[in-house]
Amino acid sequence: MSVEGARPASPILPRVCIIGLGLMGGSLALALRHCGVAGHIVGCGRPALLARAQELGAIDSGAVDAGEAVAQSDFVFLCVPVETSIALLAQIAEHLPARALVSDVGSTKEAFARAACEIYGASAAERVLPGHPLAGRELSGLEQASADLFANCIWVLTPLAGAAPGQLPGASLASLNVAPAGLTPAQRSLQLALEAIGARVMFSTPGEHDRTVAYTSHLPQMVSSALALTLEQAFGAGNPALEVHAGGLRAMLRLAGSDPAMWEQIGASNRENISAALEGMEAELRELRESLGSARFRAKFERAREFAKLLKS
Amino acid sequence: MSVEGARPASPILPRVCIIGLGLMGGSLALALRHCGVAGHIVGCGRPALLARAQELGAIDSGAVDAGEAVAQSDFVFLCVPVETSIALLAQIAEHLPARALVSDVGSTKEAFARAACEIYGASAAERVLPGHPLAGRELSGLEQASADLFANCIWVLTPLAGAAPGQLPGASLASLNVAPAGLTPAQRSLQLALEAIGARVMFSTPGEHDRTVAYTSHLPQMVSSALALTLEQAFGAGNPALEVHAGGLRAMLRLAGSDPAMWEQIGASNRENISAALEGMEAELRELRESLGSARFRAKFERAREFAKLLKS
Repeated sequence: MSVEGARPASPILPRVCIIGLGLMGGSLALALRHCGVAGHIVGCGRPALLARAQELGAIDSGAVDAGEAVAQSDFVFLCVPVETSIALLAQIAEHLPARALVSDVGSTKEAFARAACEIYGASAAERVLPGHPLAGRELSGLEQASADLFANCIWVLTPLAGAAPGQLPGASLASLNVAPAGLTPAQRSLQLALEAIGARVMFSTPGEHDRTVAYTSHLPQMVSSALALTLEQAFGAGNPALEVHAGGLRAMLRLAGSDPAMWEQIGASNRENISAALEGMEAELRELRESLGSARFRAKFERAREFAKLLKS
Repeated sequence: MSVEGARPASPILPRVCIIGLGLMGGSLALALRHCGVAGHIVGCGRPALLARAQELGAIDSGAVDAGEAVAQSDFVFLCVPVETSIALLAQIAEHLPARALVSDVGSTKEAFARAACEIYGASAAERVLPGHPLAGRELSGLEQASADLFANCIWVLTPLAGAAPGQLPGASLASLNVAPAGLTPAQRSLQLALEAIGARVMFSTPGEHDRTVAYTSHLPQMVSSALALTLEQAFGAGNPALEVHAGGLRAMLRLAGSDPAMWEQIGASNRENISAALEGMEAELRELRESLGSARFRAKFERAREFAKLLKS
């Protein structure tokens, strides 16, 4: 019996193409492979990356050209930064088999969803199902990839069902794990595959997704980076006074280690929502500052503690 | 051979009094005991707390009255919130043996140091050595106490040598582990005992300490609480959209679980420094907001990443 024979006879995703083999794409390939969810996996990336991904057992074959990579695939995952995903969506359109479903892992969904509707027109809702796994990000690259990156992570899918360009409907986040009516069989298979690799799938609209992650993901990132900048401004790097800190500061600065190029794109593609979140944060800091040490300050700290407890449970 | 016999014949701190048996006082008692650094330990607190501390083996005897508790002691640690420490400093003055050295664990040092100079006059520098261990704080109470709370933590001491009220000199943080000239033998013993329980002792002036921790400890706390308040403001508690988050957000909200009463006192006792730190943070957030997704934004993210890396190493 060969190694091939160990794979299930009918994997949920028979032929998968993963474009981009960094932390996300590499981890997705390893996870799909590890859980026996994928049949054949084609990787797409630079030659050295393809060779390394094959060596790691993440992919079965590789192609440098995206059009060639998707040509035989049932499921295509775009695992590259947001703006690159949008460019690829157009680039692969003419090479994509009619049966194939395209998804992505971008941190914002509205720009991508809009592009999908423009490029694929009436068939966009069937052929493209945008997605976003909320998985750790301050490290990057294939060498950091891990089959369990998505274990217990939230993976939001934002169906375009009934969508027209500039008007993006869909199920509400309130529906959580309940798949919206109108998913195609391929889309249900995608959901099953993500659940098989340990993700918790939630459904939302692209717009609601982007507003939500502006607060729950993008704002914490901005805050961590701004905290680092504030300390650097006050002390300069390498000041021995900076040794006077505890684990709390290090935890707050962990996200500041994230990839600036990726965040430049996220910042650009979710500008309005992030701006609103930042304004809210600035206002809360100002209110704490103006009430330092007063009863109002304490009441605010108590509300913050209640909220933090709720989120943890 | 009795258990008593297992203790070193001449412990570094022969008779210790610990006033306040919460997370800090309880952990300090356990750590001194565990490392064989203390001879007899008297605890001071409410009767139920004293009973529990004896049960845990943290203290040898107890007194509800602070004056009675310090009467026979060589070393006294005030392990209560800042304002309470200042009140106790006056309250124990007439009961304290002339040989005794008083220290504390408060998060700010300038107000405490000033009070020490006022109460103890010319002998303040000899009799009081203010201290601040930067140890985890989002849990509180004796039941959370642990003998290894101070392992590898920074413990800042701010000698009052040469100090007059309203004018607080001392060694610089730049001197790090080098004890300043002019420590008394008792003060050197205190330093040795803290190093024995795993702390890394640094020396500073009260003023320099307070400015530093405003940025490295108090600002991260304010930021974590403000982040919780911003999310609560945007979504309300219990909104299912809040499930769309990753570990990064939870790490950023950990400090928001801290004790509001303690932070009300810290906010009041370090108002000017924290205000300045908050203003700096507000300015950095505003600059990120105004440059979202631009090259300037990316450059700032790169600087923040460099700084975060430096601090980690």
